[in-house]
Amino acid sequence: MKKMAATQLVNPDLVKERQNAAFSPEHLTYFLYGGPEKTKRKRFLQNLVIEGVKKLGVKQYATVSREEQYEQALQKYAYLVDTERQLGITNSTDKALLHEAVFPCESFPYILQYAAFINPFTMLASEEQKAKWLPLMKNFRLVGTYAQTEMGHGSFLRGLETTATYDPSTQEFVLHSPTISSIKYWPAGLGKTANACIVMAQLITKGHNYGMHAFLLQIRDLDTHQPLSGITVGDIGSKFGLSANDNGFLKMDNVRIPRNNMLMRHSRVLPDGTYIEPKNDRLMYGGMTSIRTDVVGVASRRLCIAVTIAIRYSAVRRQSEIEPGAGEVQVLDFQTQQYRLFPQLAAAYATTFASTTISAFYRTVSPHIERGDLQELPMLHALSAGLKAYTSWTCADGVEVCRLACGGHGYSEASGLPKAYVDTTAACTYEGENYVLILQTARYLMKCCRMLAEGEQVPEVMDFLRPSTSETSRLDARLVMGDLIQAFAHRAARMTRDAAQSMQTSIVKGENPGQAWNSNSVQLVAAAKAFTELHVVRVFAEAVETMRGSLRHVMESLWRLFAVNNIVSSLGDFLVDGYLSTQQVSLLEPAQRDLLKELRPDAVSLVDALDFPDGVLDSALGRWDGQVYEALYDYSLRSKLNEKQVLDAYLKHQRPFMESQWKKHAASAVTSRL
Amino acid sequence: MKKMAATQLVNPDLVKERQNAAFSPEHLTYFLYGGPEKTKRKRFLQNLVIEGVKKLGVKQYATVSREEQYEQALQKYAYLVDTERQLGITNSTDKALLHEAVFPCESFPYILQYAAFINPFTMLASEEQKAKWLPLMKNFRLVGTYAQTEMGHGSFLRGLETTATYDPSTQEFVLHSPTISSIKYWPAGLGKTANACIVMAQLITKGHNYGMHAFLLQIRDLDTHQPLSGITVGDIGSKFGLSANDNGFLKMDNVRIPRNNMLMRHSRVLPDGTYIEPKNDRLMYGGMTSIRTDVVGVASRRLCIAVTIAIRYSAVRRQSEIEPGAGEVQVLDFQTQQYRLFPQLAAAYATTFASTTISAFYRTVSPHIERGDLQELPMLHALSAGLKAYTSWTCADGVEVCRLACGGHGYSEASGLPKAYVDTTAACTYEGENYVLILQTARYLMKCCRMLAEGEQVPEVMDFLRPSTSETSRLDARLVMGDLIQAFAHRAARMTRDAAQSMQTSIVKGENPGQAWNSNSVQLVAAAKAFTELHVVRVFAEAVETMRGSLRHVMESLWRLFAVNNIVSSLGDFLVDGYLSTQQVSLLEPAQRDLLKELRPDAVSLVDALDFPDGVLDSALGRWDGQVYEALYDYSLRSKLNEKQVLDAYLKHQRPFMESQWKKHAASAVTSRL
Repeated sequence: MKKMAATQLVNPDLVKERQNAAFSPEHLTYFLYGGPEKTKRKRFLQNLVIEGVKKLGVKQYATVSREEQYEQALQKYAYLVDTERQLGITNSTDKALLHEAVFPCESFPYILQYAAFINPFTMLASEEQKAKWLPLMKNFRLVGTYAQTEMGHGSFLRGLETTATYDPSTQEFVLHSPTISSIKYWPAGLGKTANACIVMAQLITKGHNYGMHAFLLQIRDLDTHQPLSGITVGDIGSKFGLSANDNGFLKMDNVRIPRNNMLMRHSRVLPDGTYIEPKNDRLMYGGMTSIRTDVVGVASRRLCIAVTIAIRYSAVRRQSEIEPGAGEVQVLDFQTQQYRLFPQLAAAYATTFASTTISAFYRTVSPHIERGDLQELPMLHALSAGLKAYTSWTCADGVEVCRLACGGHGYSEASGLPKAYVDTTAACTYEGENYVLILQTARYLMKCCRMLAEGEQVPEVMDFLRPSTSETSRLDARLVMGDLIQAFAHRAARMTRDAAQSMQTSIVKGENPGQAWNSNSVQLVAAAKAFTELHVVRVFAEAVETMRGSLRHVMESLWRLFAVNNIVSSLGDFLVDGYLSTQQVSLLEPAQRDLLKELRPDAVSLVDALDFPDGVLDSALGRWDGQVYEALYDYSLRSKLNEKQVLDAYLKHQRPFMESQWKKHAASAVTSRL
Repeated sequence: MKKMAATQLVNPDLVKERQNAAFSPEHLTYFLYGGPEKTKRKRFLQNLVIEGVKKLGVKQYATVSREEQYEQALQKYAYLVDTERQLGITNSTDKALLHEAVFPCESFPYILQYAAFINPFTMLASEEQKAKWLPLMKNFRLVGTYAQTEMGHGSFLRGLETTATYDPSTQEFVLHSPTISSIKYWPAGLGKTANACIVMAQLITKGHNYGMHAFLLQIRDLDTHQPLSGITVGDIGSKFGLSANDNGFLKMDNVRIPRNNMLMRHSRVLPDGTYIEPKNDRLMYGGMTSIRTDVVGVASRRLCIAVTIAIRYSAVRRQSEIEPGAGEVQVLDFQTQQYRLFPQLAAAYATTFASTTISAFYRTVSPHIERGDLQELPMLHALSAGLKAYTSWTCADGVEVCRLACGGHGYSEASGLPKAYVDTTAACTYEGENYVLILQTARYLMKCCRMLAEGEQVPEVMDFLRPSTSETSRLDARLVMGDLIQAFAHRAARMTRDAAQSMQTSIVKGENPGQAWNSNSVQLVAAAKAFTELHVVRVFAEAVETMRGSLRHVMESLWRLFAVNNIVSSLGDFLVDGYLSTQQVSLLEPAQRDLLKELRPDAVSLVDALDFPDGVLDSALGRWDGQVYEALYDYSLRSKLNEKQVLDAYLKHQRPFMESQWKKHAASAVTSRL
């Protein structure tokens, strides 16, 4: 246990937990990070920047104001980029590890510089444009973001109101925000940090509207950083989370930009105003898919962090007795605590494997798409949309369960859990609102149903939709993995077919396709969730099946808990058509309780294996050494309200109020000592 | 519509919604607030203080730092107390309405002055002590709180470590915090505001520990407000919410207080150190029950606020098309949006009626308890504990569903929804952690099971536990209220009996009662939730049954949605023993969708009827006039980050970083205009 320096006092309950594990957490860590060498590098990189950030003298995120959080994020980002360049880091795994360690569950103002400024620019700009501007972007002469959503308009692109009207007389586009609802709103880093952005606007030329197009717009002077003429820009104000990010607004008052600032790889406007159509408008898909795939990973990591904090704390925290007079027990010994936390532990691993798998799939398919082979695109799109929604929901809910399971102290920002929650729940909305996304997955399911009905081929992963020979489950007390998976497959298929059937019925009743889609959308959402859950159950099982020995044993139990827990929490889905019998169901709740008991001794090691350094957990409760009360007290002492013993607010508001009350009303003598 | 002044422009979608309602929201308002006269007074009081607070010049909560929130809360509280005294307000309904309007979804430092300083003092102090100190408390010479929880100890009182050791030589108690985990932690207002508190400590006299007792401790000088010698006190730091509250810590280093500072109504220590036992130690129950009953009301009001905001915004917000080319629709027309929001609307009303009913029950029973008749106490205790847990869970989850249903803008603090959530979820933990509480309800259920088995009488409300003649439901397509209620009763009874049975099995297997309780606690929690939900379903139905005409019609539909939705989300519970058949179940999901459609035209009026003034909603999205984008933009302009165009942070961190990057790496010419 090299992390336990000889001088570091570790809480004895945690020592005992670590001694009792039936498997080697280090081996699981290797599995997760790709072997001993990569694990070593991960640790080296994360520890390096955690120490580096300490040397910058920044204060703990939770102890400073939003303005200071923003300022510190600028400072930390500069350090991060310097470090990356010094180490010559270019691969995305290393970058993600560094980001996680410098901004643990925190956003930062430059977050879209690559993801949604340089990347879409690269996809949308002509070669000439790239040659001119990419160097400026990559070297931070241009700091940018992606200005698409408006106050009144989100995911429905055609509804956007911003206009880009071509003026052939000056060969310029006139960018304009015609209404208050058309003000660009929410883009990360737009408020104070960016000096440029990609603006999505309705292209109007020769009196005709050609729809959404992308334009490069400079918004601030590159030297003075003052907003340019016609530009009103600023921060949108405090949010639930993402506090260090200056999500911004942008109002354009007839701002003129050169014709060449329209990004012209796909469509073009000639000097005389003639519009040239794009050859293929499906190429934007790839970028969205990439970002959504990243969201799956981010959400999953947040749940991994939260469950590490909650399980370690629950091993340290002693509260109440199980047997009267036998002394207070570790709260992790309470069945209700296990029932709250272990399913989150299972979900943390499940989503981790789901993230790894979808990323690998994206990397495989991406080159095909780039060379114009779009065959796998619909499947990739459906799966990444579904997983983004499923994972952000599951992980946000899971983080909150972990927070609540830490009682009062979970409510303190010292726990790191509020921060983890607000950033995870944001992922339910950004990069495609979850209901909008999961309905895209449902649309693909409906398409596959139609294809099968018409005798067409569907991708192998959709084979579960084929009519099954068995309409009842073989599940028995052994809870065989295959039988459990089959239950998820059966449910997803039944719900998909039921939704397709309901759609058909609505159309027969005279609804048009749009109405029918809407009046069945609750069912469609449920079907798409069931499909996505099937996928997650499968990829988790596939990962477990490659493991051996004691590791295999504990991970198979964790997988089984994930499966059983998800069946029990939607039991009606499995019972309603008689697929599971009452008798089979009666096995599940006792099995769930047995699994909780079985996993109890390995719980701390299962979170240790996730291998988060304290600097990433950023939590008084989740510390490796379990010295939680010392850390909590230390945090409290740093509260800004403690900078003075007697606050100005006391002298200004409390003292005069008290005096006015007791002088007016109290007949009793004034005393200064009880 | 007197709220719509002629000059106030109301969003046309909201005007249309209000014109289309099938019932009179004003009549529902009268129902909720006790008639036209009381409604008029409610409006007068709330509008008065909303205007009064405006004149204080305080800034919007979400736009200022925590330190300023604290300061403004002191200022607003002084104004509130002055207003109460000027108006001669003493009744609790008026007080609650004023509090809600001055601190909408906000905590404040003096929150425990009455609830957990004056009230427990009154219950625990002798007549002589009351005569001496109550005037000082009531007139704010003493500002106080209740110091019970410690860093290492929460709901398990016997685990508290703080000691009060009697020294007969000086006739003083020595209060001491022997360890870091014994530091008092979390009491509201303790950090900076309170100058006194009730301390709960282990009483030690003549070498014997007599357990938890209450002591009055002065912590700050009444004139200088400096902490007294031996006292270390301060704010615990930033939390998820409750930001305006200085929840504090308190470390006592052998602090001496006079013998008479022990609160001596029930037990006493004589000058020589002799301990005199209390006559009845169950009298503390009443106070806890009262606070929990209040929590039910607070949580319910928060959900009412959130659902008002979300439904109004969903009527104003237009996004995406249902029929291609037919234009963007109100998002409230999407089935998924109705599916998210209308069950929250139903839960808002359900918990409102649950709150009214438990308060009335408390008021009935309370005088009996005070005169020593404790017969109804166990039932009151079980019900208030269950309702506190059920309501805080339901309302916190519901607020969050509302927030997420508002998309990106729901994430902005301008929406008022993050604030509503963080304060509501806190109620899952404070005043008794929900799992601890709901298990107390379960304990009462087990007791009633035993009593019935032994042929004893149980309170009428527990009659559902008697063996039923019918083991299958009569539910049909009419969804008769009685049949739906019977389903909840059947489920609660079955789950309670199953849990009792499992307990029995565990004990037969050799577990002691404590172990058996723990190893069945997941089932016990589920049974107690089912019981509490039955109670809520019933009291909501009883309220609806007193209504008539169009109001009865719409409220019955809302009740039915509440019932059907709760059955559908726990379908397995009703299917597993065959109580509902597959065929009966197949009626429910279509019925749920039909109810959503049916309630759609009345949704806005159903939230209007809750009658929250804009000052209480404190939300850009929930405004009566629906001018949401103007309000959102106005909020953004007031962000602190917008106070300067170019921040010092830019000059200090961003500019040097950018320069270092492009000077080092960019070969391209530096440009200041794209």
